[in-house]
Amino acid sequence: MLPDTPGPTKPPLSKAFPMQRKMRILDSISSPADLHALSVSDLGILASEICSQIIDTTSRTGGHVASSLGAVDIILAIHSVIDAPKDKVVFDVGHQSYAHKLVTGRADVFDTLRSYDGISGFPRPSESIYDTHPSGHASDSLSVASGLAKARQLNGTDEKIVVVIGDAALAGGMAFEALNYIGSQQLPMVIVLNDNEMSISRNVGALMKHLGNIRATSQYRDAREQLQGMLESGGRTGNAFVEFGKRAKESMKQMIIPQSMIYEQLGIVCTPPIDGNDIGVMREMLELVLPMDGPVLIHAVTKKGAGYGPAEEQAERFHGVGPYDPATGEPISQGGPAKTATQVFSEALVREAGRDPRIVAITAAMEGGTGLKSFRSCFPERFVDVGIAEEQAVAMASGLAIAGKKPVVAIYSTFMQRAIDQMTVDVALPNLDVVFALDRAGLVGDDGPTHHGVFDLVYLRMLPNMKVIVPSSEQLLSDAVHTAFRLSGPVAIRYPRGSAEHDTYDGSAEPEFLEVGKSRTLKDGADVAILAFGRMVSRSLSAARMLSEEGMSVRVVDMTWAKPLDEEAILQAASTRLVVTVEEGVMSGGVGEGVLEVLSRSGARTPALVLGIPDAFVLQGKSELLLHDLGLDAEGIAGSIRDRLA
Amino acid sequence: MLPDTPGPTKPPLSKAFPMQRKMRILDSISSPADLHALSVSDLGILASEICSQIIDTTSRTGGHVASSLGAVDIILAIHSVIDAPKDKVVFDVGHQSYAHKLVTGRADVFDTLRSYDGISGFPRPSESIYDTHPSGHASDSLSVASGLAKARQLNGTDEKIVVVIGDAALAGGMAFEALNYIGSQQLPMVIVLNDNEMSISRNVGALMKHLGNIRATSQYRDAREQLQGMLESGGRTGNAFVEFGKRAKESMKQMIIPQSMIYEQLGIVCTPPIDGNDIGVMREMLELVLPMDGPVLIHAVTKKGAGYGPAEEQAERFHGVGPYDPATGEPISQGGPAKTATQVFSEALVREAGRDPRIVAITAAMEGGTGLKSFRSCFPERFVDVGIAEEQAVAMASGLAIAGKKPVVAIYSTFMQRAIDQMTVDVALPNLDVVFALDRAGLVGDDGPTHHGVFDLVYLRMLPNMKVIVPSSEQLLSDAVHTAFRLSGPVAIRYPRGSAEHDTYDGSAEPEFLEVGKSRTLKDGADVAILAFGRMVSRSLSAARMLSEEGMSVRVVDMTWAKPLDEEAILQAASTRLVVTVEEGVMSGGVGEGVLEVLSRSGARTPALVLGIPDAFVLQGKSELLLHDLGLDAEGIAGSIRDRLA
Repeated sequence: MLPDTPGPTKPPLSKAFPMQRKMRILDSISSPADLHALSVSDLGILASEICSQIIDTTSRTGGHVASSLGAVDIILAIHSVIDAPKDKVVFDVGHQSYAHKLVTGRADVFDTLRSYDGISGFPRPSESIYDTHPSGHASDSLSVASGLAKARQLNGTDEKIVVVIGDAALAGGMAFEALNYIGSQQLPMVIVLNDNEMSISRNVGALMKHLGNIRATSQYRDAREQLQGMLESGGRTGNAFVEFGKRAKESMKQMIIPQSMIYEQLGIVCTPPIDGNDIGVMREMLELVLPMDGPVLIHAVTKKGAGYGPAEEQAERFHGVGPYDPATGEPISQGGPAKTATQVFSEALVREAGRDPRIVAITAAMEGGTGLKSFRSCFPERFVDVGIAEEQAVAMASGLAIAGKKPVVAIYSTFMQRAIDQMTVDVALPNLDVVFALDRAGLVGDDGPTHHGVFDLVYLRMLPNMKVIVPSSEQLLSDAVHTAFRLSGPVAIRYPRGSAEHDTYDGSAEPEFLEVGKSRTLKDGADVAILAFGRMVSRSLSAARMLSEEGMSVRVVDMTWAKPLDEEAILQAASTRLVVTVEEGVMSGGVGEGVLEVLSRSGARTPALVLGIPDAFVLQGKSELLLHDLGLDAEGIAGSIRDRLA
Repeated sequence: MLPDTPGPTKPPLSKAFPMQRKMRILDSISSPADLHALSVSDLGILASEICSQIIDTTSRTGGHVASSLGAVDIILAIHSVIDAPKDKVVFDVGHQSYAHKLVTGRADVFDTLRSYDGISGFPRPSESIYDTHPSGHASDSLSVASGLAKARQLNGTDEKIVVVIGDAALAGGMAFEALNYIGSQQLPMVIVLNDNEMSISRNVGALMKHLGNIRATSQYRDAREQLQGMLESGGRTGNAFVEFGKRAKESMKQMIIPQSMIYEQLGIVCTPPIDGNDIGVMREMLELVLPMDGPVLIHAVTKKGAGYGPAEEQAERFHGVGPYDPATGEPISQGGPAKTATQVFSEALVREAGRDPRIVAITAAMEGGTGLKSFRSCFPERFVDVGIAEEQAVAMASGLAIAGKKPVVAIYSTFMQRAIDQMTVDVALPNLDVVFALDRAGLVGDDGPTHHGVFDLVYLRMLPNMKVIVPSSEQLLSDAVHTAFRLSGPVAIRYPRGSAEHDTYDGSAEPEFLEVGKSRTLKDGADVAILAFGRMVSRSLSAARMLSEEGMSVRVVDMTWAKPLDEEAILQAASTRLVVTVEEGVMSGGVGEGVLEVLSRSGARTPALVLGIPDAFVLQGKSELLLHDLGLDAEGIAGSIRDRLA
């Protein structure tokens, strides 16, 4: 399928690396317009320099290495033929956009990638006029581009609109909604399908599994032929289908049609697959299709991690990584905790599933990230990966629960926002037994505002029938998984990225059933009562210790449940001089406000202090730094209490 | 396309109507198994009886007439060949399921349709073992069915799974996500595409606009040929595309392929279009495909309102109607308010759009329901209907705003739940100028729990940068529309179904700019302060009058803004003996809790009382009855205040 004309010779990375800063073309690029004058050969050299820079930087900062490397050639080809920022590039899941950052005036600050006060790992309009949209959640680029194209139509202007979208993101429902609209309106734009044949874990779904292959499977072909035979054999309805018979034969021919042909049916003109890592081919194709009057999809086949051996070989591990040795790709240990919350969830789930054959686990293209790999190897038939399709994940769980299964949907907190309606109408309303495992709840660190899981306590609390467990330790997370499958109705468990940090944990203890809505008082005290949730429990204990040294008697309660709230514990807290709530989520609509409502309803007049994330988007940076800034580390909590009692 | 073999003779409705109750086949149907023994001819008679019953009942209760009539034949055909409840039928947007209710043991209570304590206008599992799933939001049926099918696979059982889905619902992204999964896994099920060629307003999108036609448009064909010509003319990349040339010719042939062929590409076997209003044909086709081993789509072409002249002719008006004269179809006036909130919004929007050419209005298949018809006729080029695709609607607005337009997205509060992630990441994070017009906020009455708009204050409050106006009157709604387009960043306006009821309004007054976060004190008082939101303002005023007659001095504040809150007004309220908040939304995470947080932060110790919708799903019934039950009418509010002060 790929053109066999060789592309411009790209120096192998081993020669380009280590970087020779003084001689770089990259250093001469101050804006993307500088690419217009470069030859294809120079663009190839620039691509190598950029790959080296990406490896050099991310080996220290961590980042999305594989997809960024794979998209370098596409991005350089685009910027060499369009006139940004007048012309617009919209990235879908912008973690592939590092090369774009490097050629749009940010090369000198690229070393601050993903760090506190540094540049974002995703496009961010407030950072650069070249960043159109803060893409962080998959599949939204085409919708955004449709808005840009409609505005252009109304304005009568002629700027070009280019979308770069991966194959996995095209499986998301909203991408289909957008293509349906773009096709029907014939809105001119160029859609570069960056087909690297690998979503974050594996490709899933008929669309992504190479349609040609699926449609050539014997099962599908048998079914097709079976129907045709039945129709041709007559009967009263058979007569009607003479014409259909002809059409069915046509459709057999179609089995050789490549994947992108599905978009042709939506009115999008598609190119054949071309080599997306060949800048010359990409640039020629862009020049061909940019002047066209309707939507065109360039099917660019790329290799994740292109040009960097370790990332090519372990593309999934190099999706998002921490610091690593650039020579070998081996991760540099950061001395983190032995077990992450994800691992604890993973082990607990496998244990429960071994005991209850009704348990089915669903992920949305995050098999590794959500810890379902071991579940999959233990119970392959009970594992479901729907691809980047959170709505399908949740509503499919509804169907499984109706049929008596015990589904668990494991999705990052931030991505579960895509399926709040399905949680509401398809699960909470019929009160079905679905467990929601919300990983990466709270601040996630380097990925920043599109990825922080700070809204879940609000959207979970609002749903009738929903129960919400907020474990503060590894053992409680394990207990929560055990408990969730024993309750009826929907249960959500939210836990942070990394370790829950609260206690040591070896996984050997038999899990305990957590009484619904029952908190645990970790430390008694008469002056102040801190009601803490999840990761804030350990910080609250430290704050209490600081305040105790100053003579204050502080009670610390691990609330454990965000819904239902332990009203008895709240009323007991009201017997102190100050009730403090601490949560790792937005305060507006959060569980602290829920505590206030319990206090108010009881007639308590004890002053209260709600601590949590204020009403603003939080940027990226190490979570500890961010928590410090927000006053949610031990010192901040102690300080707020001191101030309030002063 | 349709078979020309005539179906069984269905008596014209004029003969079957008025009903002759004693002779009805319907009266002999106690469960769907009773349909197995009926001849096609008897099924035809039964269909007529059911149509008559639907018209008879809905002419008094109101309801979804057109789609229910159109689906009668499909439903009878299905139940005549499957074995429910062992076999499962999943309805997408269950308002087409009236015939299903009538043949599953609910004929004797069908007259209570949609009424308080009556049967639901949608499938409801708690109402009948034959109702699989509480479908109310479009496009979820296929996902639910995929869960049922996966469970069946795991159980090794053989129940049949049948989905009934309309053409408009297939445009929803989650339907695509589900088909992608179902096709890839070849999960056996029968999908009946009820293609009535009309979504609630009109069909939108490439998919729905008859692909054959779109793909045959000269614009698309020109673009296709243009690309092919360019490729064939050679150049360095041209050589690579010899094979593509052949394939492109194949693709030209495809232009005659019917719409459903797109699903074939996802691995779903599709029948040719058949007459869905011919029970005999439908039944034969079902018998043919039910034994198949993979997913099959029956393309059933139906007529909305089939068999009832007025509904056939005015299918959109008969989508959801109030009581009407069964002979003529003319609505029976219920003496409602002259102007609904939707109409006020509609007029205000047209006025603003006349003054500001940047305004673009977007709806998701609800042009009529959201009042955008007049906008469309005044500004056709600035009107966008994306079909049932709320995610696309909101993210497209993001693109429009990036390009300097002032988009307004008009969607019912309950359906906006589908796009909370897009509101968050695509609009609130980049702080774009998008106006959200949330119609049907609060209790909607007869449609019940899937349609009440009771979560919006929560999911709007949690978003940084979001502003939320809750107008309590027609004039304030008009002012709110005026104001929203003059602010920067996202602004949501939520208003109820029907009239805002608060004052008389003729639309002649020039709108005023509403100061952000500024409330209006309607009545002063020293004992109690009621802080009321939206439709609760008029009820709070009445409650205050009642309490005043008992000697209580009650202040009433129309808060007007749910975000930001008027902190000054809240602190003033704290000078009374009791602060009361009243909102038409769930209390858990609602704006009442937000008021408590302001009070707490200020150090006020005044007792507070939060009134709103408790933590449970509210069933259907006239909104006034429901509000009474929930203690949210004037008497209830007054009573709660009395109790609290007792």
